[in-house]
Amino acid sequence: MSLPELETVNDIRNVLERLPGPDMDARAAADEREPQLTKPAGSLGRLEEISNWLATWQGVHPPKLDSVAVHVFAGNHGVTDQGVSAFPPEVTVQMVGNFEAGGAAINQLCRVQGADLKVFPLKLDEPTADFSQEPAMSEPIFVEEFNVGWNSVQPHMDLLCIGEMGIGNTTAAAAIARGLFGGTGAEWAGPGTGVSGPVLDHKATIIDQSVDKHRNAMPDGLEVLRHVGGRELAAMAGAIVAARLQNVPVILDGYVATAAAAPIAACTSNGLAHCISGHVSKEPGHRRLLKKLGLTPLLDLDMRLGEASGAAVAIGIVRAAHACHTGMATFAEAGVSDKDD
Amino acid sequence: MSLPELETVNDIRNVLERLPGPDMDARAAADEREPQLTKPAGSLGRLEEISNWLATWQGVHPPKLDSVAVHVFAGNHGVTDQGVSAFPPEVTVQMVGNFEAGGAAINQLCRVQGADLKVFPLKLDEPTADFSQEPAMSEPIFVEEFNVGWNSVQPHMDLLCIGEMGIGNTTAAAAIARGLFGGTGAEWAGPGTGVSGPVLDHKATIIDQSVDKHRNAMPDGLEVLRHVGGRELAAMAGAIVAARLQNVPVILDGYVATAAAAPIAACTSNGLAHCISGHVSKEPGHRRLLKKLGLTPLLDLDMRLGEASGAAVAIGIVRAAHACHTGMATFAEAGVSDKDD
Repeated sequence: MSLPELETVNDIRNVLERLPGPDMDARAAADEREPQLTKPAGSLGRLEEISNWLATWQGVHPPKLDSVAVHVFAGNHGVTDQGVSAFPPEVTVQMVGNFEAGGAAINQLCRVQGADLKVFPLKLDEPTADFSQEPAMSEPIFVEEFNVGWNSVQPHMDLLCIGEMGIGNTTAAAAIARGLFGGTGAEWAGPGTGVSGPVLDHKATIIDQSVDKHRNAMPDGLEVLRHVGGRELAAMAGAIVAARLQNVPVILDGYVATAAAAPIAACTSNGLAHCISGHVSKEPGHRRLLKKLGLTPLLDLDMRLGEASGAAVAIGIVRAAHACHTGMATFAEAGVSDKDD
Repeated sequence: MSLPELETVNDIRNVLERLPGPDMDARAAADEREPQLTKPAGSLGRLEEISNWLATWQGVHPPKLDSVAVHVFAGNHGVTDQGVSAFPPEVTVQMVGNFEAGGAAINQLCRVQGADLKVFPLKLDEPTADFSQEPAMSEPIFVEEFNVGWNSVQPHMDLLCIGEMGIGNTTAAAAIARGLFGGTGAEWAGPGTGVSGPVLDHKATIIDQSVDKHRNAMPDGLEVLRHVGGRELAAMAGAIVAARLQNVPVILDGYVATAAAAPIAACTSNGLAHCISGHVSKEPGHRRLLKKLGLTPLLDLDMRLGEASGAAVAIGIVRAAHACHTGMATFAEAGVSDKDD
């Protein structure tokens, strides 16, 4: 299908109201095959859920896993003026250079997972506005960045990992989480790249003040994302929604990617049904946010890097699930006695 | 190095008293490289631990990951005469046929993980003695099977996954766990391939009675393994110990593989330092046993299949860790500002 043009925030709202549902034929075909495979029923645990999910949201059975994409969106944040990060904002552009040269963690992970990495630097010399003072993005900027993600998704993709890079963006993630789910800045703020003590307290205060400041201007999830998000968060949201329309299942990375997804769920209750959480990061707000969204992460390895790194490690689990579901012999084929034979 | 000949249980005891320790030079080299890589310190979480562990127990830096082996040991159990399993014992040989034909879960997992699968059927037409009545194995049989695992490990292997197949062997695993760590059969017994209700209660009773019966004849872990283990458990223990001597790090699979490893730790406190737990299975005794052994599993996916399947999925995490540690650019190479620049 070709995706509709998006020119305003209302265009995005209209898309969210009409998201396609699960493919019940593909799901039924997966449900029929799984119990015939040579293993005790249910013994592959979440691998069985994953292969079913893959078929359901690709809309095809058997599910495919030939083309796995990893998209990393990078942006800079005016809120770093408030001293909320351990690293200087120049690191965002330096790390994009590192991605392009193949030296970052995500490059190595994509290589071992057989995934295609694409990096989207989003006007790194134009940070969003400092959202402790004004909305992070105007409507046109928000829609422009949403469209970058929206247009990044291609129907040939069988699986898409969503991640980011952006000094300051755990502050944005925490502000979105508080904007959507309430609580205090201290509950949602974490060390990010490595702040602690008084700097972490200050980060929490900035989150509280920013969300309070914009509260009345944020009637829905998209406005939360626009006011206290950032370029890469808007783009990730666009990619996640486009993936739903293009039948591409999504693995979300860590706290920031999950925070970019959360407004979609806030607008449309089943809006993230085509997404799984690749991992829960060490950033404490992430576990809390996943719980609010009803997502159970595949991995819990104390990672907190971003760059889609946790999602990329989780590709291996999806490959395992896919290989078992599509490649195993049935009891009949293998001449193995079933439980009740 | 060439491994010593093992002719008696005492020969095994002697080996366990002289296990080689960690390679501190390889560890130091890993410790030196890790903080130079282009990421916030510690942000790869357990991936950083894993690459360090790999170097330490291979005894080389950078660690290698060219040759990954998966060994599945299969045996039959006289204790199935007591009606402790949902599947008939014939399934063990049928599943070995399925492994050889490439139709089982582990075949698919080895394919996607780039691992070499070897299956060791251990006299499947000669089940061990029913350990509710007599010791599962005589000393010669125990040493013979230990040697099968012992001789299966080759020094060219960079990583070895240990798993099993054997109808009835979660009963053996639970009996070993109770023999080593006490508690009740009910605390260590689980559904295995799918028992519940009165059959599960009966399984727990058999475990209690069997361990009580042999208690005075089991002065150490090896005797526990011989009395209430089985052929594949003895072989797994042999492979794990041989791997230590051959500088081959090990990924343990589920409850049964962990129960085969536990007697090694009972004999020698750091005897499993070269092993990681690939996953915690849904079999409830497994989580408890891992805790007793101080092992933190890499995955928690509700799997409970055996066949080294959980360990094989975890290979992907070790590959991820290895790729990041060996392939990433340093801050200096990439021209990225470090935190304190």
